[in-house]
Amino acid sequence: MSQFWSAHVHDLDPYVPGEQPKDQRYIKLNTNECPYPPSPKAIQAIQSANLEHLRLYPDPNGDIVKEAVIEYFKEYNLERNEVFVGNGSDEVLAHVFCGLLKHDLPLLYPDISYSFYPVYANLYQIETDVIPLRDDFTINIDDYQRPNGGIIFPNPNAPTGIALPLAAIETLLQRNPHSVVVVDEAYVDFGAESAVSLVKQYANLLIVQTLSKSRALAGLRLGFAIGQADLIEALERVKNSFNSYPLDRLALIAGAAAILDRDYLHYVSRAIEQTRSTTVQGLERLGFKVLPSRANFIFARPPQGQAQSLYSQLKERGILVRYFNKPRLNEYLRITIGTDEEMTELLTQLRRLVG
Amino acid sequence: MSQFWSAHVHDLDPYVPGEQPKDQRYIKLNTNECPYPPSPKAIQAIQSANLEHLRLYPDPNGDIVKEAVIEYFKEYNLERNEVFVGNGSDEVLAHVFCGLLKHDLPLLYPDISYSFYPVYANLYQIETDVIPLRDDFTINIDDYQRPNGGIIFPNPNAPTGIALPLAAIETLLQRNPHSVVVVDEAYVDFGAESAVSLVKQYANLLIVQTLSKSRALAGLRLGFAIGQADLIEALERVKNSFNSYPLDRLALIAGAAAILDRDYLHYVSRAIEQTRSTTVQGLERLGFKVLPSRANFIFARPPQGQAQSLYSQLKERGILVRYFNKPRLNEYLRITIGTDEEMTELLTQLRRLVG
Repeated sequence: MSQFWSAHVHDLDPYVPGEQPKDQRYIKLNTNECPYPPSPKAIQAIQSANLEHLRLYPDPNGDIVKEAVIEYFKEYNLERNEVFVGNGSDEVLAHVFCGLLKHDLPLLYPDISYSFYPVYANLYQIETDVIPLRDDFTINIDDYQRPNGGIIFPNPNAPTGIALPLAAIETLLQRNPHSVVVVDEAYVDFGAESAVSLVKQYANLLIVQTLSKSRALAGLRLGFAIGQADLIEALERVKNSFNSYPLDRLALIAGAAAILDRDYLHYVSRAIEQTRSTTVQGLERLGFKVLPSRANFIFARPPQGQAQSLYSQLKERGILVRYFNKPRLNEYLRITIGTDEEMTELLTQLRRLVG
Repeated sequence: MSQFWSAHVHDLDPYVPGEQPKDQRYIKLNTNECPYPPSPKAIQAIQSANLEHLRLYPDPNGDIVKEAVIEYFKEYNLERNEVFVGNGSDEVLAHVFCGLLKHDLPLLYPDISYSFYPVYANLYQIETDVIPLRDDFTINIDDYQRPNGGIIFPNPNAPTGIALPLAAIETLLQRNPHSVVVVDEAYVDFGAESAVSLVKQYANLLIVQTLSKSRALAGLRLGFAIGQADLIEALERVKNSFNSYPLDRLALIAGAAAILDRDYLHYVSRAIEQTRSTTVQGLERLGFKVLPSRANFIFARPPQGQAQSLYSQLKERGILVRYFNKPRLNEYLRITIGTDEEMTELLTQLRRLVG
């Protein structure tokens, strides 16, 4: 509380990211990072960069990353004005809320979803209508047939990991021709279907992706959006009214290299899907209920309603997972898929704790 | 114009940064970059980083950079909650406008100043009262004695290069105890006086600095703010409602190393001041009027009112400077101070063009 603060600052309820411990003591399964290093080509791009050029501003438009996105999705013939890049998908999402989702009618999103959405809505003073998931944590698109100024959801959803089929997304797009439908595909590469194939067909579709998960570059801060030129222009206008150069020179070259290394992305994603499958089996054998995940994390309910105490006990034993002390979520743990070795250690510890 | 845009997007008038040509053909004196490379210690920090750790999120709080700022200004005994870090001073300024400068009373800033200020004000719909500089392009602090919700100006000012003495800033702070006074010190290291010494004394003072100029890291995107904890908290609340991790892992370690390399900063700043001095003499010999600059650029009026044509002719000859086609500015060129060799080439070309 301060006389100097802009009035709305008093009402902000900032996002709280998962813990980032500064030591390396933990098996870190709490912020959905990739357990494998970034593409060797991304690392090579940084190692061979002329670091003296850091004295010069980066390309404000991030064209090298836009071109990489266009090449990666080349079967869809994207143009440069159909791609937007930003400082992590969190910054991209902030500009989306500011530029495309503030309308007289409320924004719709699921009650259980990325917990940054209500924070953005509050920052930009966007009215919202929060739609409960079904009891089984799936999205019922029929619940979104109400007046709205936009719709946003992650696909797969977080923290459930459950994916919505492409046909359902297409139905949502058809039912809401006057609203932007934002599909936040942060976790799409771990087994869900991307909606990028629908971009040319639907003027109201915006896809957001990140390099922090399947491309293992959380530490370098890159995200992008894909949509028709009209939507992208709104994001560029907002971005260029906020910060001209959000991506630094090293992020640009390493990000582009990572996007173009399609083989490495597939290798990493398939490895994580395989580990996810064996982890789910192991948890189910211990009596956990695990939601069907298409993401690089799982949402799992321990057998005897002891989620919070398990979170603490695992932390004492050097394993960080994420616990949300909120209605409907507080019986579950969100567990990032690590390496096979890390997940074996998790299962070993859990066997002792719930056995 | 689009049905999908948030209403205010239609009225945005985005900032236009100086050209960033993708080839290296030009002597680049148009965006106030440093002609010298970053500190060898900053380069070393990147070269010795474990790039596999880029899979992990960075520290959302940027503590390593905050600690470096505290150490750099150690005679002022700053605390960690008196420092804010962001993705370039442009992002820091955006959060300042959002979090500290939106009030019922208008924001005051000079008519000739950093041209991003009106863009931010428009983005956040902040009412402004724009105060003309004197005819000699200096700030008259008596003109700021009017009801206001905040005051912002660069010191030295841009694009004039003229500095305001510390005593005048202190008077402004005393006259406006209920408004935040933001001193944007992007160019302060080239011979002006920083107001950091006043932070502990004035609850309404906020200083903003950047690593893009004297620390030669424009390509890495770092800026910071210094003020009492109350002001910094507003910035943290806004930042954590927008993007938790604006600084990547490499920016954090290289930025901290650059801030701590005090000797290199002094070496670079003194070299640029020396080159500025000889450049001004050379321009004056050619009949230019040059405003007294304390920055790493000069604002110079050609002898026969041919600023715009000189801008174009210099560009044809491989030298980029900045020309602003706006009232009061359109008779001048803003010329970044490069190396001695670059400025000799500039003077050689100008001698041919105006001789």
